[in-house]
Amino acid sequence: MSKQQFYLGIDMGGTNIKIAIVNSSGSVVEETVLETDIKAKPADVIKSIVSKSSKLKNYHKVKSIGIGIAGDINFLDGSVRFSPNLPMWKNVALKGITEKLTKKKVFVDNDANTAAIGAFWLDAKGKAVNLVCVTLGTGVGGGLIFDKKVYRGSSYTAGEIGHITIEPHGIKCKCGNRGCIETFVGAKYISEYAKQYLKKNKSAAINKLTNGSHCGITPKILSMAAAEGDKAAIAVWKYVGEKLGILLADVLNFINPDTIVLCGGVSLAGKYLVEPVKREIKSRAFASAVKECKIIVSKYTSKLGVVGAAMLPKQ
Amino acid sequence: MSKQQFYLGIDMGGTNIKIAIVNSSGSVVEETVLETDIKAKPADVIKSIVSKSSKLKNYHKVKSIGIGIAGDINFLDGSVRFSPNLPMWKNVALKGITEKLTKKKVFVDNDANTAAIGAFWLDAKGKAVNLVCVTLGTGVGGGLIFDKKVYRGSSYTAGEIGHITIEPHGIKCKCGNRGCIETFVGAKYISEYAKQYLKKNKSAAINKLTNGSHCGITPKILSMAAAEGDKAAIAVWKYVGEKLGILLADVLNFINPDTIVLCGGVSLAGKYLVEPVKREIKSRAFASAVKECKIIVSKYTSKLGVVGAAMLPKQ
Repeated sequence: MSKQQFYLGIDMGGTNIKIAIVNSSGSVVEETVLETDIKAKPADVIKSIVSKSSKLKNYHKVKSIGIGIAGDINFLDGSVRFSPNLPMWKNVALKGITEKLTKKKVFVDNDANTAAIGAFWLDAKGKAVNLVCVTLGTGVGGGLIFDKKVYRGSSYTAGEIGHITIEPHGIKCKCGNRGCIETFVGAKYISEYAKQYLKKNKSAAINKLTNGSHCGITPKILSMAAAEGDKAAIAVWKYVGEKLGILLADVLNFINPDTIVLCGGVSLAGKYLVEPVKREIKSRAFASAVKECKIIVSKYTSKLGVVGAAMLPKQ
Repeated sequence: MSKQQFYLGIDMGGTNIKIAIVNSSGSVVEETVLETDIKAKPADVIKSIVSKSSKLKNYHKVKSIGIGIAGDINFLDGSVRFSPNLPMWKNVALKGITEKLTKKKVFVDNDANTAAIGAFWLDAKGKAVNLVCVTLGTGVGGGLIFDKKVYRGSSYTAGEIGHITIEPHGIKCKCGNRGCIETFVGAKYISEYAKQYLKKNKSAAINKLTNGSHCGITPKILSMAAAEGDKAAIAVWKYVGEKLGILLADVLNFINPDTIVLCGGVSLAGKYLVEPVKREIKSRAFASAVKECKIIVSKYTSKLGVVGAAMLPKQ
């Protein structure tokens, strides 16, 4: 039997930094977390991460480090050109600095790709061939695995699934386009739709959860209300699921993947989101492509980034 | 210097069967053509093709044969389950029969993939990395080259770009979906749009080309009229180009290719189609993806299929 391999993963978020050591099938062996100091100098943040990581029991067995971070990442040289969550991080040689401090091989990629790798190892158990991972949160991100490898595109911007148009004359998106899927299923757009919906429809459950102020509606509250059987919340998820279904039918016809994984906060609506998604896909996509593809809500949303980062060298 | 390699390609269409021997950079060395007998037994058609091919001067130097054909093709065993242009062809072991007759290695693929391979070798000179080929004709087909290899998807149906939705509540497409791009830019839909447009707008050029009967409008006539400076024809191509641009902006954001090749009869509208396509893309897609991608109208539309078929073994 071959000796067990260990990989260190780091998921750099705007609130906290997750650190984990995983084995060669993607299972977490050890983990820790660090609060993100968004005002600190990047070099100091990297030092803290290395210091925290090196206290893990299995750290000395780790040969490589993978780091996932939101933003514009130069995958080739492992530098961070810009990160929306970390305003101090501009043109930071993340790979170079970390390699110097740790003497280990470092890989850096954006968080949509690390989420896809995480979904490949955790949700698909490493068995998918062509997988599309859709992160549903404030924004809508996408990561692509084709033939078991991350597909990054010709200038490393592939997977911008949130900015596929589903209503050509829809509202303007922050990206400049109109009617992007993000303007229907991004968290704040869901909340906005729910507020409008509740002007014409009543919901005792949502009123209770928001103390009567619909300004406080979030996808999380809508999920809670739906789980209580609230009709208005279920209707909002139906609307969101149908829009997402239009997008995913396009993905099925174009890419013919064997697996689509939905993750991120909005995906926690579970069946209230996924059932209308599946109905819409069935009514729109090619039957052979529908038959081939499993649509999964990730069971590991909070771990995908850190596990996917750790597994970067295996891609 | 290594010895020149020769590849035989066969492009099986509903009207004729193109046969060519190409060299290792995809240039045609020798070619011939055979009329398609759609009523003949498939085994007899294959015999005729082999007989015709074997008369080519360089045939004895050919090591492999590639065949492209429209329809539902089992890429793995090289059988034709169904071909819309050849009603007699149902579950035909095209690869098996041809290998038996020729004693050469045979590859079979659908015509959207062979067109993409042809575009890769002829239009992109074998230098593209990620290429999307869009065939614009009666239908709208797509072939995908990722990392210099054909991407076929998990059940070999990837690339159905004609059935990506651009108007979710648009008219019903023959595939069952609504508002597919094919319902805007498929040849008969372009003709239909032009007929409607001409009810409210006049065009002396189109009247002349159709002898006053708008029933005879085709994309070819619209291209001829546009080339004469006809305003109505140019307006129709602007409409078609804008719709196609919405689709291609999605492709850029999602796949980030370095090359998009437009081919097929409708693409012969040239700049009247491509200029509005490019404007629409620029207004919708990520600037970095737009900057990376060349949008090309194929200069080799009639040869892509046969050259791509020949080059199948090189993929």
